[in-house]
Amino acid sequence: MPFAHRLNNVETSAIRELFKLLGKPGIISLAGGFPDSALFDIEGIRAASQQALQEDPGAALQYGATEGYQPLREQLAAFMAGKAALDIRPEDLIVTTGSQQALDLLGKTLIDPGDKVIVEGPTFLATIQCFRLYGADLIGAPTDANGVDTGALEKLIAEHRPKLVYLIPTFGNPSGATLSLARRRQVLEMAVRHQTLIVEDDPYGELYFNAPPPPSLLSLSATVPGSRALLVHCGSLSKVLAPGLRLGWMLAMPELLAKATMCKQFSDAHTSTFAQATAARYLAAGRMPATLARVRKVYAGRAQAMVDALRGEIGAAIEFVPPQGGLFVWARLTGADGRQADGNALARRAIEKGVAFVPGAPFFCAHPDQATLRLSFATVDEQQIRAGVARLAQAL
Amino acid sequence: MPFAHRLNNVETSAIRELFKLLGKPGIISLAGGFPDSALFDIEGIRAASQQALQEDPGAALQYGATEGYQPLREQLAAFMAGKAALDIRPEDLIVTTGSQQALDLLGKTLIDPGDKVIVEGPTFLATIQCFRLYGADLIGAPTDANGVDTGALEKLIAEHRPKLVYLIPTFGNPSGATLSLARRRQVLEMAVRHQTLIVEDDPYGELYFNAPPPPSLLSLSATVPGSRALLVHCGSLSKVLAPGLRLGWMLAMPELLAKATMCKQFSDAHTSTFAQATAARYLAAGRMPATLARVRKVYAGRAQAMVDALRGEIGAAIEFVPPQGGLFVWARLTGADGRQADGNALARRAIEKGVAFVPGAPFFCAHPDQATLRLSFATVDEQQIRAGVARLAQAL
Repeated sequence: MPFAHRLNNVETSAIRELFKLLGKPGIISLAGGFPDSALFDIEGIRAASQQALQEDPGAALQYGATEGYQPLREQLAAFMAGKAALDIRPEDLIVTTGSQQALDLLGKTLIDPGDKVIVEGPTFLATIQCFRLYGADLIGAPTDANGVDTGALEKLIAEHRPKLVYLIPTFGNPSGATLSLARRRQVLEMAVRHQTLIVEDDPYGELYFNAPPPPSLLSLSATVPGSRALLVHCGSLSKVLAPGLRLGWMLAMPELLAKATMCKQFSDAHTSTFAQATAARYLAAGRMPATLARVRKVYAGRAQAMVDALRGEIGAAIEFVPPQGGLFVWARLTGADGRQADGNALARRAIEKGVAFVPGAPFFCAHPDQATLRLSFATVDEQQIRAGVARLAQAL
Repeated sequence: MPFAHRLNNVETSAIRELFKLLGKPGIISLAGGFPDSALFDIEGIRAASQQALQEDPGAALQYGATEGYQPLREQLAAFMAGKAALDIRPEDLIVTTGSQQALDLLGKTLIDPGDKVIVEGPTFLATIQCFRLYGADLIGAPTDANGVDTGALEKLIAEHRPKLVYLIPTFGNPSGATLSLARRRQVLEMAVRHQTLIVEDDPYGELYFNAPPPPSLLSLSATVPGSRALLVHCGSLSKVLAPGLRLGWMLAMPELLAKATMCKQFSDAHTSTFAQATAARYLAAGRMPATLARVRKVYAGRAQAMVDALRGEIGAAIEFVPPQGGLFVWARLTGADGRQADGNALARRAIEKGVAFVPGAPFFCAHPDQATLRLSFATVDEQQIRAGVARLAQAL
């Protein structure tokens, strides 16, 4: 069957092949990108869904506006205000079917085949694939412990004049890195200087361990004249409430938001009103702060357990920056003492030893660093993390 | 801002402009494409959602497989078996975010810019727009009271060698028409003869008034060798259970299903597991037959009320085939006695008289019949239907 040419731009994921091995009994998985289901506020979601069906069953079950269920847009605007983006109005955002759909709508709305798009190297795998399906020519900007290297980024922008720059500035996936405050300002200033669209994907910003991260680009844009009109911000309830609701949102300037809404109309008409009405009641009930406090505490403990275990069990053979939030430790095999320095090879040996993780190479759109790996601490308890890292040490 | 060129293929919908006028107080709307929320089985959906959260909250709220929640795939296969497609297995279908997403995935998977696609004239508006966003060159096949004219369709297939042929064979939107059994066989036979992909969109097939419609193309394909591998079938719970769950499904040959699943992964990762787990419990509870019996009876009564009112109030100035199921009467202004014969002009005058409907012209991808209109009887009771048609007669 002759498929569309756009499918040639996307390979079957190497990670998918690896995931098939995860069914092996007794495997400790540090491979997932999931939050821990044991932390879901099931009672709160149950109550919210009941309330939605009781108070306004028609709205919760009928077709709805493509832009989103108005009470949820209001709650999300208020949620953003709590994150110091004080001037957001409900009509500045649309609800998306998970933040994955926001990426898809950006691709559909903006990207012509051959358009340049700059992403972090490494970045979220599904962003790479999503944009490639629209024919994007992806360029990776180097990153370090403080996020994207803004000097290098500006050179790439000047050279390639990209359609957009996609960043996960806070607790990045897979890097775990957080863009420093100074660099955040620089990104907004270069957006204005080069009139370049910046997409800030922020699914993890609320999952901080000790101090909150620097303000989002969205929040900072109020202080950099002209930058708000060049900024798209994507949010998600997946990591903080429940992925199964498939609720994300996208803020953008009105013209782009209108085009994205039109594209959404022909993508899925609208996001589940049942899920939207449930989340609107959940947020209105004021349960989110307690939920966030709980998940932050648990993930902080697990992150610390992983950091300690990696240092204790593996030492000089691995290097990493301890994450300040999010779900991941991004690490690099140093090859010290002649040990394995290839993430792919280690992943296969680790499975044999009973622990799984994701090698880092596929997260680069080009020039992969084969020595990297992504370790998730989100879905296993501290004891399992220590056992998993011990197995990893054996595999090394 | 430079948007992607694909957006140039889609105009802002004339219907949208019309819909803005619907807020006018006292308007009787025959314009919607919605089922009646008053007929939703709220208690059944409430119970199913509670059961899903109680029995397996992790699965209902966590990330899930892109292909769909396995218990729902099993229930949908069983539901198809009840519609005489006996040999369907759960793995033959994927769950989509409404059947709109199935169309989007078909576009993404199959359509390159410039590819020819044949649709009925008239057909579902969002199909036209969805496929045009992927650059399809749409060709309209003529239809009559028995659905698409198969003789004309075969000539168009031979001439244009389309990527696919999209049909709503049963109680079509907007036409209300049902493809005859003889023509269904002919469609499958010509698919094999020309090795052409046929997409059967079937959101309305269960909404019959008296006798069930002829077997679906999917069901018939078991008797036409080679046709199953050339057939895609799209189903939906929107019109029979609740649109707000956003649950549809797509059956296709394994290779196409795998590519569509990959595209879905980067479109929205998966459909809401909360909605899927709710629908799986609803179907398993065996409530669907009673729900269907109820909605069929109500819509049959409303359809009859509309048919009687149109004949009584408007007579020779309008012609139509009484629908045997679905949500719509598709009618044509005859201009008899010098009365209005333009659907667009009538739509504006009708709004002034306090009744809304959708003019038919936008439903044609080319050569619109300006005298046509679509009247929905789904969301207003019989008394309102009579009052609405009386206002329509005044506007004429």
